[in-house]
Amino acid sequence: MKVPGKYLLFLGDVADRLSAKTACGLLDWARDECVGQSRLTGCGVDLGLPDLDFAAARQAGAQTLVIGVAPFGGTIAPHWIEPIVAALTAGLNVASGMHIRLRSVPAIAAAADAAGVGLFDIRVPAATYPIASGRKRAGRRMLMVGTDCAVGKKYTALTIARDMAARGMKASFRATGQTGILIAGEGVPIDAVVADFVAGAAEALSPDNHADHWDVIEGQGSLFHPAYAGVALGLLHGSQPDAIVLCHAAGRTHIDGYPDFPIPALAECVDLNLRLARLTNPAARCAGIAINTSALPATARADHLRAVSAQLGMPCFDPLATGSGAMLDHLTAAVG
Amino acid sequence: MKVPGKYLLFLGDVADRLSAKTACGLLDWARDECVGQSRLTGCGVDLGLPDLDFAAARQAGAQTLVIGVAPFGGTIAPHWIEPIVAALTAGLNVASGMHIRLRSVPAIAAAADAAGVGLFDIRVPAATYPIASGRKRAGRRMLMVGTDCAVGKKYTALTIARDMAARGMKASFRATGQTGILIAGEGVPIDAVVADFVAGAAEALSPDNHADHWDVIEGQGSLFHPAYAGVALGLLHGSQPDAIVLCHAAGRTHIDGYPDFPIPALAECVDLNLRLARLTNPAARCAGIAINTSALPATARADHLRAVSAQLGMPCFDPLATGSGAMLDHLTAAVG
Repeated sequence: MKVPGKYLLFLGDVADRLSAKTACGLLDWARDECVGQSRLTGCGVDLGLPDLDFAAARQAGAQTLVIGVAPFGGTIAPHWIEPIVAALTAGLNVASGMHIRLRSVPAIAAAADAAGVGLFDIRVPAATYPIASGRKRAGRRMLMVGTDCAVGKKYTALTIARDMAARGMKASFRATGQTGILIAGEGVPIDAVVADFVAGAAEALSPDNHADHWDVIEGQGSLFHPAYAGVALGLLHGSQPDAIVLCHAAGRTHIDGYPDFPIPALAECVDLNLRLARLTNPAARCAGIAINTSALPATARADHLRAVSAQLGMPCFDPLATGSGAMLDHLTAAVG
Repeated sequence: MKVPGKYLLFLGDVADRLSAKTACGLLDWARDECVGQSRLTGCGVDLGLPDLDFAAARQAGAQTLVIGVAPFGGTIAPHWIEPIVAALTAGLNVASGMHIRLRSVPAIAAAADAAGVGLFDIRVPAATYPIASGRKRAGRRMLMVGTDCAVGKKYTALTIARDMAARGMKASFRATGQTGILIAGEGVPIDAVVADFVAGAAEALSPDNHADHWDVIEGQGSLFHPAYAGVALGLLHGSQPDAIVLCHAAGRTHIDGYPDFPIPALAECVDLNLRLARLTNPAARCAGIAINTSALPATARADHLRAVSAQLGMPCFDPLATGSGAMLDHLTAAVG
């Protein structure tokens, strides 16, 4: 399932960039594929791309309207159906990372069939997966884990994979969510897999490889999330990580959308992830802490990273601000 | 989705009772619904029910052939299709607790349609579920957790719900697997839910209730199982148990089918379950240990239960041998 580029990014009427994760991810990591944005009245996000209508987008080379927002629960808002139908009628394919299948909306299915264009449901698993075997695989694996959803796990993994490649290390980014799959061109929408098969799907995502090859695996959810911890655990067990990287957003005080659930202490989060990871890889350890410091004053960011590093005794970096070099130096010294 | 009784239990050619969990569960907890067994050459299990062909089963009042076995991975063996088709042609409905949908096998779908009888996929969720809210619900909840799969979580929950009712306590058995659903007539096949929605489905399974009502919830999997721990964690978080009961099979040394994965120490299993349970219910505690002692010499069983109880400092019982009275005495003294 390869989605035809280039992309027109649909932002609907979402209020903030956190709700436009998919669009922002494509803009940052697949910029050349993005020709414009499509927004409804009231949209609070501006990606800095040209606002194009569907005909203009086609003229600019767009083949697919990508639903660039990830609303809570993964459903299509009723008032988005009309613009999606209009895009299809104008000859654009439509790609969605939501749980609901595009084809399950009759007006969307009819418009796609009438226009002879495609509907791509990135979040619907393209394959069936076996039950996890627990068998140890060749090669090395690094999994992003998080204090919460939307703390930068995908950006951290993409940064690490890019930085590893720049050093001549063998590395592959492994996508587990809709945005990562659109960026990488492949992957497993792990939270959409039937629960019994999550660990098995994670095993399939990072198969046997060269002894010195790193799979850098995008994380999902958090062990401290009241809705998604099971997904995080299945991914942790199936990934069998040699190293985890804890991802966090500085300044976040509670699980996003769950005011009664505080963000755990970083040390507790590392400890619980390692305790559980060691079921399938007894050698699992934490390689470092990735912190999105953008919510802090610019002058406080470097001090914050240094303080966390000193407190936890491991490398701490902001992937967008500093890259992952400090962690990779440490990793290379430790494992070669 | 109410499956029409009475039942003819299909055992295929499985080798042992552990592979015939569904049939054994129905025999023990819904005996009056079971009119006979249907076995293929080589079957190593005898439930002590009459061996009936399909015509004789119908004469004896059977309306449904229940696939009474739960093979690894939840698939239908190719050589079972012919007898299933014959049962349909003879006028029996067919109910299955396997992941694969009966209707996805063309010969089965055609035979059901030709005979005008029904196909019941117990393990396919009948509803869609919301994302878990984490909101605390009224009423009390007790969740079975396990050192492994197939250690007696369902039997323990059924025993406790029965013993509570016999004492005049308000109690409901809540089924999370195919056999439990056939016994109870309702429930959620939790391991077949899309991963993102597991905790939400568990919340829906035990809704708000009277303050002194207990939901006694069937567990699934184990936090120490390399394939199914994610399911166990989602169920644990969504159930928000006030009390967990750890279920174990004496003499088991490793996770069934995974010789490289040893059974954890009981104290470690209690500790990890409580640590994780307290995310959604900070008051969670362990009410007791349920041990299937049938693999031990008869003379050693009572001593074993006493020793574990002394070691862990909590009630320990064999649900089939002793019932759950000792634990309920303790529970009533503690919480009223």
